[in-house]
Amino acid sequence: MSLTRDDLKALDKADPLAKFADEFHLPDGMIYLDGNSLGAMPKAAKARALEVIEQEWGEDLIKSWNKAGWFELVEKLGNKTAKLLGANDGEVIYADATGLNVYKLVAAALDLRKDKKKIVMEGSNFPTNNYMVQGLIKQLDRGHEITFAEDGEIMDAITDDVAVVCLTHVHYKTGHLHDMAAITKKAHDVGALVVWDLCHSAGALPVDLNGCNVDFALGCTYKYLNGGPGSQSFMFVAKRHQGVAMQPLTGWWGHDLPFGFERDYRPRKDIRQFSTGTEPIVSLAMSEVGLDIFLRADMNEIRKKSLKLCDLYIQLIEERLDGYDFEIVTPREHDKRGSQVSISSKNGFPIMQAVIDAGVIGDFRAPDIMRFGFTPLYVSYVNVWDAVERLVQIMETNAWDKPEFKQVGTVT
Amino acid sequence: MSLTRDDLKALDKADPLAKFADEFHLPDGMIYLDGNSLGAMPKAAKARALEVIEQEWGEDLIKSWNKAGWFELVEKLGNKTAKLLGANDGEVIYADATGLNVYKLVAAALDLRKDKKKIVMEGSNFPTNNYMVQGLIKQLDRGHEITFAEDGEIMDAITDDVAVVCLTHVHYKTGHLHDMAAITKKAHDVGALVVWDLCHSAGALPVDLNGCNVDFALGCTYKYLNGGPGSQSFMFVAKRHQGVAMQPLTGWWGHDLPFGFERDYRPRKDIRQFSTGTEPIVSLAMSEVGLDIFLRADMNEIRKKSLKLCDLYIQLIEERLDGYDFEIVTPREHDKRGSQVSISSKNGFPIMQAVIDAGVIGDFRAPDIMRFGFTPLYVSYVNVWDAVERLVQIMETNAWDKPEFKQVGTVT
Repeated sequence: MSLTRDDLKALDKADPLAKFADEFHLPDGMIYLDGNSLGAMPKAAKARALEVIEQEWGEDLIKSWNKAGWFELVEKLGNKTAKLLGANDGEVIYADATGLNVYKLVAAALDLRKDKKKIVMEGSNFPTNNYMVQGLIKQLDRGHEITFAEDGEIMDAITDDVAVVCLTHVHYKTGHLHDMAAITKKAHDVGALVVWDLCHSAGALPVDLNGCNVDFALGCTYKYLNGGPGSQSFMFVAKRHQGVAMQPLTGWWGHDLPFGFERDYRPRKDIRQFSTGTEPIVSLAMSEVGLDIFLRADMNEIRKKSLKLCDLYIQLIEERLDGYDFEIVTPREHDKRGSQVSISSKNGFPIMQAVIDAGVIGDFRAPDIMRFGFTPLYVSYVNVWDAVERLVQIMETNAWDKPEFKQVGTVT
Repeated sequence: MSLTRDDLKALDKADPLAKFADEFHLPDGMIYLDGNSLGAMPKAAKARALEVIEQEWGEDLIKSWNKAGWFELVEKLGNKTAKLLGANDGEVIYADATGLNVYKLVAAALDLRKDKKKIVMEGSNFPTNNYMVQGLIKQLDRGHEITFAEDGEIMDAITDDVAVVCLTHVHYKTGHLHDMAAITKKAHDVGALVVWDLCHSAGALPVDLNGCNVDFALGCTYKYLNGGPGSQSFMFVAKRHQGVAMQPLTGWWGHDLPFGFERDYRPRKDIRQFSTGTEPIVSLAMSEVGLDIFLRADMNEIRKKSLKLCDLYIQLIEERLDGYDFEIVTPREHDKRGSQVSISSKNGFPIMQAVIDAGVIGDFRAPDIMRFGFTPLYVSYVNVWDAVERLVQIMETNAWDKPEFKQVGTVT
């Protein structure tokens, strides 16, 4: 028997996470399935920003570095994030942007494996990771090379000569979820280190970094964690590597005595060595608001709802859009996917434009992928129904086949 | 004849920049002489932040990358900043933090001078610049070395074997201003390139990068430019070096086709190659507010007032605090100083604490420097009188000699 809108309404009524939706702002009538690109705004973010701007900057000025804890914020937020990632206090810090943190962590890992030159990465990954590591090894000029492997080839690519495996946990385009435990174990078995990019998994599903014995990880906060546009990245460095692994972008915030103003760099021996310098405080402070919501939610419930939202979306697409040129490229198996559904279609570009025009926000990734992200804290089951309904209408009326649906700009 | 408070009132009355003070928020009664560390808040910053948060993020969400011009903001702000620095459109870009940009620019410059290994820097400079270059050359491991030279030794240190001269235009501690034209010329004469750090000069005095034939420059925006706590850094790359000089932190924003999601890095051939990745947008957007104020002010008037404020402060300190252990370490010559007055005193630490307690905000730099920054857009001549008056009272009553005046945290 086919699903009905009432079935989905009933799921919303029973949803233990439904109460969180009210903590986010979304425009009237919009169905927002792009929280995997830019998370929705927590309503409390505005008050926090105003507190930083009016009180901490405006009134307290320079005193806020101490009084408001600006200098410590990178660690405070790190400790909160650690709770979502199976990490401990003092293992996570906020700093800079995702790409820079890929650079730092891969450089630190390579430095611990000087005798090996191979780095395993996924060629189809969001490219900034590849670009940063390409920049790094070009700069080092010591014979390092990247082995690009796609899903299915990765385990075999992790051979004895591999120094570092640097992968993104959930694939930005397909939504494929790598097996962190198995890949990390294989890497360690051959003497390699791992750097996991959690951009599409932090806040989307339970992550157990220490349970998987991960060495290094990083991620962004502006997707599932709702930190605001371009909010800073976090890094995880396992305790056992701290004071041993050293990143090369050695700014004063990573110095052992930052206010000693010594001439020569002396590294801190803890997570703070991975920070660089002064962070944009307003953006940084706002990202705490999103974290605080997550700390009140149950990550297992989030995962359960995420899988169900995606399952229902897939089911409805198949039930109601059979016969159209749609191929669901996201794996069906729960343990092989994150919190998005990606559909390939040769007309994906104008179709996604028409979908957006109809108030359902997803995005398009060249050459043919329509991405829909499901963020359980503010996406409802009825949203799933309505999103499919609008797509059905677009397809049945050929509403996508119009010249105006030709250009979009999207940022992962 | 000695100065009187009325003399300073008269100067305020005739001050063509006086009208700008109303555009900044300062707490009642506070005399803020720390704008060289964290600039005061432009009143319009709050409205701009709310626009970004409520409308661009909250309502328009992912569309704002295009609709609100988020992706182009780094160049838009760069072009505005260029006007303050004697640079052209397309020569300045915003990205990341100061230390990271020192790293990028020195790396790019060294790469253009592969045959030489020496870098001239000032050992007493704000240390993050030294730390970043120390990290870079350690990482490169190709025999580079830093020659540390202090003011007076720098011209002689620029010898034929020098690849790069990397200096801060105005010294963070003493306020000493280097001769950008002469040093740049000397560097070019020996075949070296220059990287100028403008952290304490951008917004403080007229800078003429192209007039001085500068190769690379960078600076922060949270001091004299009032961009907000930790607001992003800018970089200047002379047109002649663009497409030739390449920085190694090769993120997707520096790729020739960022939304093509190609696997391999292909550099842009313009200023954008110097950006890395997604920037914290709220902090970035707010810094435009401070810039817009500067674009309505006359930088020559700013310099004129800055010098006069500092002259008067020095004069009053000498007239009214003769006999105390105060030595003014900032050069008296106008062409040798920025916009601060630094005083050394063996009791500088508790004295500065007492001064702050009395509502005059300056800061302390170990081991013995009291710094007072003069920001002509919101510091008045009467502020100078009153700041000295409070210091006189503190010294005459020994108000500084108390146990509570012992600990402060300061961030440059």
